[in-house]
Amino acid sequence: MTNILINGKEKNSININDRGLQYGDGLFETMAVHNGKIHLWESHWQRLSLGCEKLSLSLPNRELIEKEIALLCNNNNESKFVIKLILTRGEGQRGYRYPKEQNITRILSKHAWPDYPENNYSDGVAVCYCETTLSENKKLAEIKHLNRLEQILARNEWESDEFQEGLMSTIQGNVVDGTMSNIFAVQDNMIFTPDLSLCGVAGVMRKTIIDIAKNKGFAVYEKEFSKSELEMADELFLSNSIFGIWPVKMIGKTRFTKVGKVTKQLQEEINKLCQS
Amino acid sequence: MTNILINGKEKNSININDRGLQYGDGLFETMAVHNGKIHLWESHWQRLSLGCEKLSLSLPNRELIEKEIALLCNNNNESKFVIKLILTRGEGQRGYRYPKEQNITRILSKHAWPDYPENNYSDGVAVCYCETTLSENKKLAEIKHLNRLEQILARNEWESDEFQEGLMSTIQGNVVDGTMSNIFAVQDNMIFTPDLSLCGVAGVMRKTIIDIAKNKGFAVYEKEFSKSELEMADELFLSNSIFGIWPVKMIGKTRFTKVGKVTKQLQEEINKLCQS
Repeated sequence: MTNILINGKEKNSININDRGLQYGDGLFETMAVHNGKIHLWESHWQRLSLGCEKLSLSLPNRELIEKEIALLCNNNNESKFVIKLILTRGEGQRGYRYPKEQNITRILSKHAWPDYPENNYSDGVAVCYCETTLSENKKLAEIKHLNRLEQILARNEWESDEFQEGLMSTIQGNVVDGTMSNIFAVQDNMIFTPDLSLCGVAGVMRKTIIDIAKNKGFAVYEKEFSKSELEMADELFLSNSIFGIWPVKMIGKTRFTKVGKVTKQLQEEINKLCQS
Repeated sequence: MTNILINGKEKNSININDRGLQYGDGLFETMAVHNGKIHLWESHWQRLSLGCEKLSLSLPNRELIEKEIALLCNNNNESKFVIKLILTRGEGQRGYRYPKEQNITRILSKHAWPDYPENNYSDGVAVCYCETTLSENKKLAEIKHLNRLEQILARNEWESDEFQEGLMSTIQGNVVDGTMSNIFAVQDNMIFTPDLSLCGVAGVMRKTIIDIAKNKGFAVYEKEFSKSELEMADELFLSNSIFGIWPVKMIGKTRFTKVGKVTKQLQEEINKLCQS
């Protein structure tokens, strides 16, 4: 059973001179696959392309990646799993300067579908504020690059199952996203989500939700968010490519409507999309 | 000829589930070795220890690392080379959360001594300002972690040999360090170097220079630096563990004394230390 393909070959290790290991010089995408279909593939590809552009990485051949994902899916009977794609700048000499000629390393791996409790969707999740801040750099904002120490430090601030996610803020105190998700607020039937032009990952599910909401006639705004603004919202929810939408029932000590009307409507739209 | 040791074994690849590759979850040190002696080993070990503390990584056994470096040195006739040590949090499951039980991966590799031109030391180097900013996060400041995309983007802003280093600044415009070095300014016989409490790597050579300078009776200050302040200095020089001290002869369009008196004195002290 093939679970890993590196540059199309069945193996599970990379050379230590790979710049992905040496410097975190690369990108990744984490995708949901249902019955052989990559969910939101177009948007994943768009973000990967943006990442390659921002880091001056050669974008690999799209059909090749699709073929390799299909290969991982075919040799497997599970109907639902996660595919992770990592692209690195490949092997190089010591030093930050990279060669003009790039031999990109592409790593595809298949993972079990995570077993999230059903009531994360129906009742919502509790989230905490993380102390680890998100640093700002417009050249690294929005893309899903391999430099993830801030998320690691933030995610490991809490151990108990009391909280399902932690929110990260800038040094100025603006809330940007969760360690592995984006956040949305609903206020007076309008939808707000933090602006990500200086930091944070522009989630593929976030983009999908913005598109769907606009399509349904909602006004959607990207803006700066203080914690107190966030806590005053009528509804709050988190999004990511794998779990879709989780309502937030509790943030810090503030309790919300279990599942708000708008959140529920968007959950239904996302479910339809997943089943289509 | 052994050039790489991974957890003490001669091999050259790591599992793709290693968190060093997946998230840049680790640290490194780049050390000069002369005739089997690790130069400034005590300071390298101190910075590695600080890094392990800040990232909650288990610090490996010091004697083990020393033994492995000796092994790499013994099988080799070159008198001078570079040893790079990478520590990662080891293999893990998908996700930012890390296991309590850590199986640290330690990677030691030996590299040829870089062939820097002699006149980098005698005449000085020309440096440019990089556009890529350094982001601020006190939890990641000072340590030499594996998240190096900012340095990579900065180093690849120039291609010509006209510049030997690029200086990086915060989003507010304060100069912090070079892509692979620290910077010092001499003004009225006092020595200044950027404060690194929010970003930048606290170089082992930087620390050595501060100690030596204080020992020689100089006042040494760590402070914020604007570009114009830097350009008004009497002398400027760069430092790193491998090259030691390079005077700066040109910064942007400002030309300096080729090699200032204080710079020369410190170069001589560092040379003595290297030969001891």
